[in-house]
Order: sequence, then structure tokens, then C-alpha cells
Amino acid sequence: MPSFQIAVLRVIEAMSLGESTRLHDIGEDELIARLTGGLRMGEQVICGPGDDCAVLTSGKPGWLDLLKTDVIVEDVHFRSGENPEAVGWKAMARPLSDIAAMGGIPTAAVVTIVTAENLELAVVEGWYRGLQRAAEAFGVSVVGGETSSSSAVSAVISVAMTGRVEKECCVYRSGAKVGDAILVTGKLGGSLQSGRHLNFTPRLAEARWLTKHFKLNSLMDLSDGLAKDLPRMMKMSGTGYRIDNSAVPCHTGSDLEAVLNDGEDYELLFSIKQDATAELLSAWQKQFGDDPKLSVIGEVSETTDAPLSGGWEHFSNSPR
Amino acid sequence: MPSFQIAVLRVIEAMSLGESTRLHDIGEDELIARLTGGLRMGEQVICGPGDDCAVLTSGKPGWLDLLKTDVIVEDVHFRSGENPEAVGWKAMARPLSDIAAMGGIPTAAVVTIVTAENLELAVVEGWYRGLQRAAEAFGVSVVGGETSSSSAVSAVISVAMTGRVEKECCVYRSGAKVGDAILVTGKLGGSLQSGRHLNFTPRLAEARWLTKHFKLNSLMDLSDGLAKDLPRMMKMSGTGYRIDNSAVPCHTGSDLEAVLNDGEDYELLFSIKQDATAELLSAWQKQFGDDPKLSVIGEVSETTDAPLSGGWEHFSNSPR
Repeated sequence: MPSFQIAVLRVIEAMSLGESTRLHDIGEDELIARLTGGLRMGEQVICGPGDDCAVLTSGKPGWLDLLKTDVIVEDVHFRSGENPEAVGWKAMARPLSDIAAMGGIPTAAVVTIVTAENLELAVVEGWYRGLQRAAEAFGVSVVGGETSSSSAVSAVISVAMTGRVEKECCVYRSGAKVGDAILVTGKLGGSLQSGRHLNFTPRLAEARWLTKHFKLNSLMDLSDGLAKDLPRMMKMSGTGYRIDNSAVPCHTGSDLEAVLNDGEDYELLFSIKQDATAELLSAWQKQFGDDPKLSVIGEVSETTDAPLSGGWEHFSNSPR
Repeated sequence: MPSFQIAVLRVIEAMSLGESTRLHDIGEDELIARLTGGLRMGEQVICGPGDDCAVLTSGKPGWLDLLKTDVIVEDVHFRSGENPEAVGWKAMARPLSDIAAMGGIPTAAVVTIVTAENLELAVVEGWYRGLQRAAEAFGVSVVGGETSSSSAVSAVISVAMTGRVEKECCVYRSGAKVGDAILVTGKLGGSLQSGRHLNFTPRLAEARWLTKHFKLNSLMDLSDGLAKDLPRMMKMSGTGYRIDNSAVPCHTGSDLEAVLNDGEDYELLFSIKQDATAELLSAWQKQFGDDPKLSVIGEVSETTDAPLSGGWEHFSNSPR
């Protein structure tokens, strides 16, 4: 073929490539919405995609079953040289945080690892030690796993987890009511810089205590930053929000900008009837003191006058 | 630092790298044994790693819960240009085959996808159509999922699945007894060449029928080839085996060599008391006819005089 024709074909090819939509052209929320929009749910499904966990009917009267999967990817959620045991801890702690965000108790986990085939065995063994340490710390059994390898692959550690929760303790993202107070556990911001994203404590104990003693209207865990996660919860509730910027608890060295954007806080974000907050804050103080602290950061409103902006966008931000 | 010192350091580094064990130095079975050997199981765990699914107590009297995760990796389990919908079907059908291999009924699935961030959206949407088609065909709900991307990554599709099974229908790999007949459903070999690995039917209906009507002693699905999977089941049962090579059902165009080595058959391999086989074969013929066929291929013995050799080794074979 004459080189001119080849050149023309290349231009046409480039044009058609330019027209087709690629993953980095759209956000994760839009992608998930497109992928899961057409899914048909069986009658045993109480809550499908969209909340921290899927919720299913249970054979045990008064209880619900939970199911969640979470993945961490090399050079996105951890760096190649990072302590393997800390990486393993993170991989297990993230879905534990999602079980907490439903008010639940974790039951069992299965682990999928995909790596380069020339990876050192010691690294994989380190990951597993961390996975197992987190599993034991929070009473979940690692009941199975799979490993696969490829010549060219970033390491991937995926953990799927089952859990259970009493019907009256299960809290969804969608239940926030106008007038609710919005609260957050712990402090936010700077998780990546400080290394907290590798050794955080999933708030299982706190979430169980909260849902056992108080009627939360909505609940989620903060993984993509307040500016991204709070609007998600309010959108699912059909409400807006008003945040008191000065009340947002920042980690030392972090400011509001960091809190809004950094992500990976793994703290609980929830809403509760305004007039229950005084009793809640007092009971929390007796139970947990200031570790972690509990802060009222705003309220649920009909509309959002000052939207938060920022937050982690999986396909559009550069990898971290 | 003088360049000589740097060179010496590089040599030392290379030497120590050479001495450390890497994944491709050991087989998948050894790796899994090393990783899962120290795992501690909670009291709700009836069967942890090692069988086709993990088995857990259920809140529903008379029933058991099943949990499984399975992953397919680009250039290992499928090729980049392959029909995305067929790839999605395969990703869902594999754990369905594992649920079948416990005699179970699938309940819910969660899907994790990791891809390059410049992948075309249409490819991911094609995967999802295939995942959903398989899910609907076998009554499992896709209740959640996650997507993540990296700049350098082979595509990974991981599916975790829950299921359930009546206690009396649950069959493990470890129950084979000396004297049992060994049977296999369908025909074996040539799955990759023929494309069957992308559109196979998980044997859920057949496994349910078998475990409802007959007392199988051991059961698994064939994924890594007869030469690899049969010895695994016999090892877990503490038995040996004797295979009648001429009785092994080969697909057209395949021979025994292919059957032993190819893998990805996704047929059922099981053992049952010798004197139940005549009744079983006759009842099978009435129920399923010759599609799939059912073949007696050997018997469980105390020791193995003629070990099968071959089969797919995840970390040592070249990727496929």
C-alpha cells in the first residue's frame, strides 16, 4: 500500500479512536451506573449495587446477609516498595470498613491475588501475613483464595467478604432526612502522606455501638474524600447538605482542602435526628472518649447551597 | 560513589535476587499451601481453603452457605481481542461451576474489574453483558462490583459468589472411598482450541440432580485438566486411583494427551459406590440422554500404580 494511503488510514484510525469513549473519559460513578443499570435482582436481594455492601435476605430470622468486594492495585492504592504486611492489612481493612458502614459483623473473606510471575514469594507471603492479621483482629475467617499470574501486570489484591447484621441495625446511605445532623468519626485528611491508609482501624466497634444504641438514618464510610462521599450519600437520600467548614475535624498537618480531596480516611459518616445528638455525643464520650473523636459537621438540608468540591476520581485522576 | 562500587553493589543485588524464591519457581498448589497453611478458622467455617468452595454454617436449619472467588486475567485466561461478551460469560460461569461442584445453588455475585484506564468503555460494557447473561441463565444476582484502573495492567475480572446447599447434598473432594467408581460428565480436551472455554455450560443442573438422587462420595469440577485435578481429589481423600484410558471421553479432535493437559473442561468429576453405578447410568440416560454424556473412567484404589501426568500449572507454564 502506498505510504500516503497508510498515513490516511492512520489518521482515520486515530479519529475513530478519538470518538470512542474510554474509561478515563468518564467518572467511576457514571461507569458503575452504566454497568449496573440493567442488572436484574432476585427476590433475595434487598439492596444491590450503590451502598457500602449488598444486602440480602438471610435464612436466620431477624438478620440480613451482607456481601462486599474490594480491590487494591499496585501504583494506585499502594506503591511497589511498600511494606507487604501493611499492604495486606489495607486490603483486608477496606472491606471490613464497608461491613462497618452497614452496621454489620464480618463473617468470612476470600482473597484473589494477581501478580507478575517473577514476583518474590516473600512479598506474597508478607501480603498474606497482613491480610491474616487484620482478619484475626476483627474476627473474620479467610476461607479461600486464588492466585494468578501474568507476564505484565500490576499487582492486584481483591478481597470479597460476607457479613451479617440484625435488621434493626442495618443502616443504608439512602435514609438521611432533612434536618438530620451530619457527624463524622475521627479526623480527616492526609491519609496517604502520613501512611494512615496502610494501617487504619476499620470502625467496626464504633459502628456496632452506634447502631445498637442509636437510630442512625444514614451511614457510609469515607473512602474517596468528604467532597465526593457526602454528596453521594445525600444524592441517594434525595437531600442536600450544609457543612460547617470550621467543624470538620482535620488531622494535624491537614487542612480543609486536604480533607475534601485526599480520600482514604475510612472514618464513618452518618446522619441522625438533630435532637438525638446531645445524648449521642455524651454517650460516645463515656464509651470512646476522644479516640476516636466524634464531630457534628453539618446538617441535612433540602438543597445544597454551597456544594463541596474535590475528591478522588478513579479513572480521571492520575494514579496514586 | 565510585562507579566500581556501584557495579559491585549491582552484582550483589543480582545475586541476592537470584537466591530469593519467586512465584514461577513453585507451583500453585505449593503456593496456596504455604499461604493458607497458617490461617485460623472461626467456628462457623466447616471447610476452608482446598475445596471448590468454602463451606460455612448457615442461619437456615438444614442448609450450608458457600463462598467462592474466581479470577480471569487477560493473556492468561482470555486474549485481548476476544469477544468481550464471551469473556464476561466465562468470568461468571467459572465460579458457577465451583458452586455446582459442591452440589449447590448460586445466590449472589460481586464483580471486580481492573483494567488499563484507556480501555474502551464498549469492552467493559461487553464484559458486563456477558457476566449478566450468565448470571441470569443460572439464577444468580449481580449485587455489586468495583472498577479500578492502572496505567500498566492486564485486564482482570474477578467474581466472588455466594451459594447454598442442603447439608445432605453437599459433596466434598475428600470423601472418595477405595472401591468407588470414578465418573466424569461430558467430553474432555481441546477446550482452548475450540473456544469452549468461553461458552461452556456450568453443570449446575446436572450436579443438583446427581446430589439430590444419589449419594456421591466425592465431587469437583475439572478446571486444570484430568491429570492435575484427579490426583488432587484423591490426595484429599487419602486414596489412589486407577484410570481406564480407553474409557476417558475425548472431544472430537482431542486425544488422551490433550485431555490430560488442556484443562478448562468445567465438567464434573466424582466418585460413587461401585454398586450404585448401574442404576445411576440408567437414571442419567433417562434424565439427560447423551447430552452431556456420563462415563465411568476408573476406580478409586488404595495406591496409584500408573499416575497421570500433565495438567495446567499456573506459575510454571507459559501464559495462555
